[in-house]
Amino acid sequence: MSHNSFGHLFKFTTWGESHGPAIGCVVDGCPPGIELSENDIQPFMDARKPGTSRFVTQRKEPDQVKILSGVFEGKTTGTPISLLIENKDQRSKDYSEIKNRYRPGHADYTYDAKYGIRDYRGGGRSSARETANRVAAGAIARKILGNDVVIRGAVTQIGTSIIDGDHWDWDQVSQNPFWCPDAKAAKAWENYLDEVRKSGNSIGAIVEVQAEGVPAGWGAPVYGKLDSEIANGLMSINAAKGVEIGAGFASAGYTGVENADEMRIKDGTPTFLSNNSGGILGGISNGDTIVARMAIKPTSSILTEVRSINSKGEEIDVRTKGRHDPCVGIRAVPVAEAMLACVLADHKLRHRGQTGN
Amino acid sequence: MSHNSFGHLFKFTTWGESHGPAIGCVVDGCPPGIELSENDIQPFMDARKPGTSRFVTQRKEPDQVKILSGVFEGKTTGTPISLLIENKDQRSKDYSEIKNRYRPGHADYTYDAKYGIRDYRGGGRSSARETANRVAAGAIARKILGNDVVIRGAVTQIGTSIIDGDHWDWDQVSQNPFWCPDAKAAKAWENYLDEVRKSGNSIGAIVEVQAEGVPAGWGAPVYGKLDSEIANGLMSINAAKGVEIGAGFASAGYTGVENADEMRIKDGTPTFLSNNSGGILGGISNGDTIVARMAIKPTSSILTEVRSINSKGEEIDVRTKGRHDPCVGIRAVPVAEAMLACVLADHKLRHRGQTGN
Amino acid sequence: MSHNSFGHLFKFTTWGESHGPAIGCVVDGCPPGIELSENDIQPFMDARKPGTSRFVTQRKEPDQVKILSGVFEGKTTGTPISLLIENKDQRSKDYSEIKNRYRPGHADYTYDAKYGIRDYRGGGRSSARETANRVAAGAIARKILGNDVVIRGAVTQIGTSIIDGDHWDWDQVSQNPFWCPDAKAAKAWENYLDEVRKSGNSIGAIVEVQAEGVPAGWGAPVYGKLDSEIANGLMSINAAKGVEIGAGFASAGYTGVENADEMRIKDGTPTFLSNNSGGILGGISNGDTIVARMAIKPTSSILTEVRSINSKGEEIDVRTKGRHDPCVGIRAVPVAEAMLACVLADHKLRHRGQTGN
Amino acid sequence: MSHNSFGHLFKFTTWGESHGPAIGCVVDGCPPGIELSENDIQPFMDARKPGTSRFVTQRKEPDQVKILSGVFEGKTTGTPISLLIENKDQRSKDYSEIKNRYRPGHADYTYDAKYGIRDYRGGGRSSARETANRVAAGAIARKILGNDVVIRGAVTQIGTSIIDGDHWDWDQVSQNPFWCPDAKAAKAWENYLDEVRKSGNSIGAIVEVQAEGVPAGWGAPVYGKLDSEIANGLMSINAAKGVEIGAGFASAGYTGVENADEMRIKDGTPTFLSNNSGGILGGISNGDTIVARMAIKPTSSILTEVRSINSKGEEIDVRTKGRHDPCVGIRAVPVAEAMLACVLADHKLRHRGQTGN
Repeated sequence: MSHNSFGHLFKFTTWGESHGPAIGCVVDGCPPGIELSENDIQPFMDARKPGTSRFVTQRKEPDQVKILSGVFEGKTTGTPISLLIENKDQRSKDYSEIKNRYRPGHADYTYDAKYGIRDYRGGGRSSARETANRVAAGAIARKILGNDVVIRGAVTQIGTSIIDGDHWDWDQVSQNPFWCPDAKAAKAWENYLDEVRKSGNSIGAIVEVQAEGVPAGWGAPVYGKLDSEIANGLMSINAAKGVEIGAGFASAGYTGVENADEMRIKDGTPTFLSNNSGGILGGISNGDTIVARMAIKPTSSILTEVRSINSKGEEIDVRTKGRHDPCVGIRAVPVAEAMLACVLADHKLRHRGQTGN
Repeated sequence: MSHNSFGHLFKFTTWGESHGPAIGCVVDGCPPGIELSENDIQPFMDARKPGTSRFVTQRKEPDQVKILSGVFEGKTTGTPISLLIENKDQRSKDYSEIKNRYRPGHADYTYDAKYGIRDYRGGGRSSARETANRVAAGAIARKILGNDVVIRGAVTQIGTSIIDGDHWDWDQVSQNPFWCPDAKAAKAWENYLDEVRKSGNSIGAIVEVQAEGVPAGWGAPVYGKLDSEIANGLMSINAAKGVEIGAGFASAGYTGVENADEMRIKDGTPTFLSNNSGGILGGISNGDTIVARMAIKPTSSILTEVRSINSKGEEIDVRTKGRHDPCVGIRAVPVAEAMLACVLADHKLRHRGQTGN
Repeated sequence: MSHNSFGHLFKFTTWGESHGPAIGCVVDGCPPGIELSENDIQPFMDARKPGTSRFVTQRKEPDQVKILSGVFEGKTTGTPISLLIENKDQRSKDYSEIKNRYRPGHADYTYDAKYGIRDYRGGGRSSARETANRVAAGAIARKILGNDVVIRGAVTQIGTSIIDGDHWDWDQVSQNPFWCPDAKAAKAWENYLDEVRKSGNSIGAIVEVQAEGVPAGWGAPVYGKLDSEIANGLMSINAAKGVEIGAGFASAGYTGVENADEMRIKDGTPTFLSNNSGGILGGISNGDTIVARMAIKPTSSILTEVRSINSKGEEIDVRTKGRHDPCVGIRAVPVAEAMLACVLADHKLRHRGQTGN
Repeated sequence: MSHNSFGHLFKFTTWGESHGPAIGCVVDGCPPGIELSENDIQPFMDARKPGTSRFVTQRKEPDQVKILSGVFEGKTTGTPISLLIENKDQRSKDYSEIKNRYRPGHADYTYDAKYGIRDYRGGGRSSARETANRVAAGAIARKILGNDVVIRGAVTQIGTSIIDGDHWDWDQVSQNPFWCPDAKAAKAWENYLDEVRKSGNSIGAIVEVQAEGVPAGWGAPVYGKLDSEIANGLMSINAAKGVEIGAGFASAGYTGVENADEMRIKDGTPTFLSNNSGGILGGISNGDTIVARMAIKPTSSILTEVRSINSKGEEIDVRTKGRHDPCVGIRAVPVAEAMLACVLADHKLRHRGQTGN
């Protein structure tokens, strides 16, 4: 058991605080002989890193990842891969005034309740900066999965503005700063988020991730279910408040007839005529696209004053200065993709271990 | 790692198939010296057991739990508690005709894809019968938590019919066969479910579980988060397709100002003025009521014919005879309560282990 | 984490006390499609069971194992295999007088120190009766390993009487009640043990287990080492006080030149000219026979009076009536074989999971 | 599961190869609020580091440990502690010629058999350099245990030269380069080891570690036994071939009467009159000094030529140039102490988690 590890056969352990010298993770269980260099990881780091548009935090972090072990002459050796990312732009002074103040929606109060001590600089261990490690681990997970498994994510809702699913175009996702698959919605979000940002407020979002090409048979029937571990992985991302698979919460309103994903044989292959299941039945992949969605609450750091208390138990008002994402949901996309990749890589190995396939 | 265990310091491992001689679980890590007998567990078993109304499956199972180890002279000894529940009303013949047929929405196809073999009788290991074990383990978890922590659940939506939150009355939950906290909605659901049932169809539902009295400080900051483990636990329940904490998916539509749970001091105690967080901040309990909701898809076993394939790869039509719940969401309530209890008991011990509190 | 489980991908969890209604274990992670019935397990149970000669305890237990789950139509399904062994010959009254007395060498005092409560009947959870579960799990592990891996054990020393290694003959092991591979030593042990037994005393022993046919490459380099997990497994057996691999403690007296297992190619295959390594280098199998030895202390239950205290902190004298093994080392052989089989089966699956081989 | 982690509630994960840029470990589960700085760790690193006398390898490594996370304002925060140790004196060229040659006694052959690839420079992941991480983790474990628990180690045998137990003096251990508690033996070992070294040979050793002040009650009854986890920890140290607890292998020759650790009340406290048990009964500490011993084989890297094969399957002769310990047992002492400390710290937290004590 570790409170800072994720996965089983493919497992990573992360460490580091927002304003320490560095953060990093140790990836254990990677198969040997896989070609791997920093160049395989960096593009995913860049996709998550801050400061890329006015819609995300202006903290400047190159997020350059270094491989310290586990790779020899360009290939994984099967031993632990240690990844290090230095913190460059900490500005600890921004945070000194919140040392004894509990910011609503943040983990300040709960860390103190649990540990009696916390590294208050930039949220310390609870900072979303930790997620850079997940993205790095996810890049390795993708190498394990190979090119047949394609994992992608998108923002499908910001605040009350929802994309039109009929306009979904994966090519659009990289064409706008919101990971939005609907060109029209992306356009509307510019003004919407500018307003939110200028008013010293923030806004929630919904992120969808998909994995195509996962063969039928990965997962496990009861407590290592593919869907329960995806839920675990996505819900462990900062600010996540909900996770759903396939039709998700909508399925509560369906009848059994509506919900049934009927099957036919198409070109000799079992095929589902719909995908309410999100590609998972009884905790095991069915060969269809795996679809998961997560709800991300609005950034808790806002310039608007809200009522709170301090560590002495006095009532105070708090507004959070500093550099923050007006919508943390945007930068959650590569993180959610990474967690999905990690769950799948782990299950690929677990399935192979038990069954030999 | 185990695909059939749940939890860490407080951990249970389940076994058994729907139509084998028995099912059971081994509960490990229970503190010593706790008074425990079958009488502490049985009421929860009775609440989940089938055949209690016309709205649930008519299979007749007494679900009598036996303690085989770990309790001596009425008290837990700290050693593993083995629990056994015999299967009494299997009627295997009902299932023989689906031996080679893949029922849409069921795990038939995926079990075959994974293992190349399955116990097809009544769903085998993937049967909701497995959840009786969870309820038994949950009863022990409640003993560990003590009387200060109160865990309760309710059905808040069946199909498209949603309760009126203003009418929420916990006392109503035991007054109707739906675990419905809204007397008026419960009345409406009778006709609604009768129609669904008579038309050979089924319907989805939403279940909400709450834990009051959890002290601030349980949980862990990154991968052992209280919310991610609750998500894991609830999503591992049969037919679950979504989990949310506090405001959940609704928080995607909120601004930071709307979402902030402001704090004041009330009677000397830190108090939250709202509970969008669902009692969890940064993965750690904040002392407020823990609130989680799960979406349950409609029962996949329906009398209406749907298109499918068989294990030979031939296209067929399938209708599932036998005894089934028209709305499995109803019987999911005690199971969801149990999973919440188990996560909390585990975290109580884990927190105590690390911090001494 | 579980204090009552062993293994990772192939994992078993045991439960039960010496004088409860039954003991049992849950075997998780077994590959699907393996032919398995009680008949595959029972011979190993019979080899361990008490009452087979005058040199072991006279408790009469049929140790009939029942498979309650995980096997369907004669084959494993990949789901948990629950095994149950009923306790038939408990005679609890024999133990009532030790309820508050701490027997030297037993876990009575330490259980009370840890838990504040213990099932004192027959040693409760600390009884060697628990090892029946290991033997059952080991029988399944053997099926996973297949016929190419041959696991056998023998007693090489009882008290101060050591076998002559040059007389080692595996066929002798089943020809005497001591698992002794040296016919001459076996003859001598009859009188030796009779004397020990009649004098109300007991005696220690050394057990050796070997696994032939293990391919090179199983194990892991640092903390999942094949040898450290074998050490863990053997040392967890009741009364074990030492474990060694290959040359073991003797290697402390060797020089590097003496200890080197030189290699040559024989019939095209890498071959070791000696086996001081015991078949393991750097935690990984090298293809040679795996050899482990364990020291078993003399049975702590003796008829001779020894000084002790009771639970009130009063000084007392204790002699342990009841039925006991004069040399528990004898019945440890099938248990040690089983633990070796379980470690190897686990590592076979773990190796396959990570490397695909 | 991780092949590169050790422990459960107190857990560390190591990474790094002998000739990579650095090695390190992540220590998870440390209680919050413990004063900790590099100064608490460095003395133990210095005790293990190479180059301190002519009897150990002449590689020059400062082994300066850096804390990268988990400590804030001089105290642990309860979050993961990342420790980094840079490699300074790699000299990779020394090893180029063994790239394709399998050194007897080393893990060269088995790594290739397992992974099909290995970092051959200095043994890569299988280098004893990895043990620096264990010592660092052990220093933190000692802080968790507090001053009441005293952990110390000594070399009791080198080759065929055994110390006189009656001359045991802990103060001597730091007075000679051998960790020898017997001044006279230490004197003799100088010449003995010089001869071994000059002849291009190496020699084995026995290391003993003790923990005083461990309260009765730590450990677990069946598979998390204190002794089996100590065995696991010690056997995972490079070159370990055997582990024993208390009387260990000698107990095989004892009768029950000889082996019984009788008890009396002394100054109101339960006291054992002997310590054949090594402070552990039924897997649980009994309050007496915990005593474990390990056998360390002679260094496999020797200047004398031995027969072997290369990766092409050709027969070759190998002599290992480079800088090596003539007796690796010497530098194993602080490593063995560290592993004992880690097992105990883990069990302190696990015991507290389950029982609250």
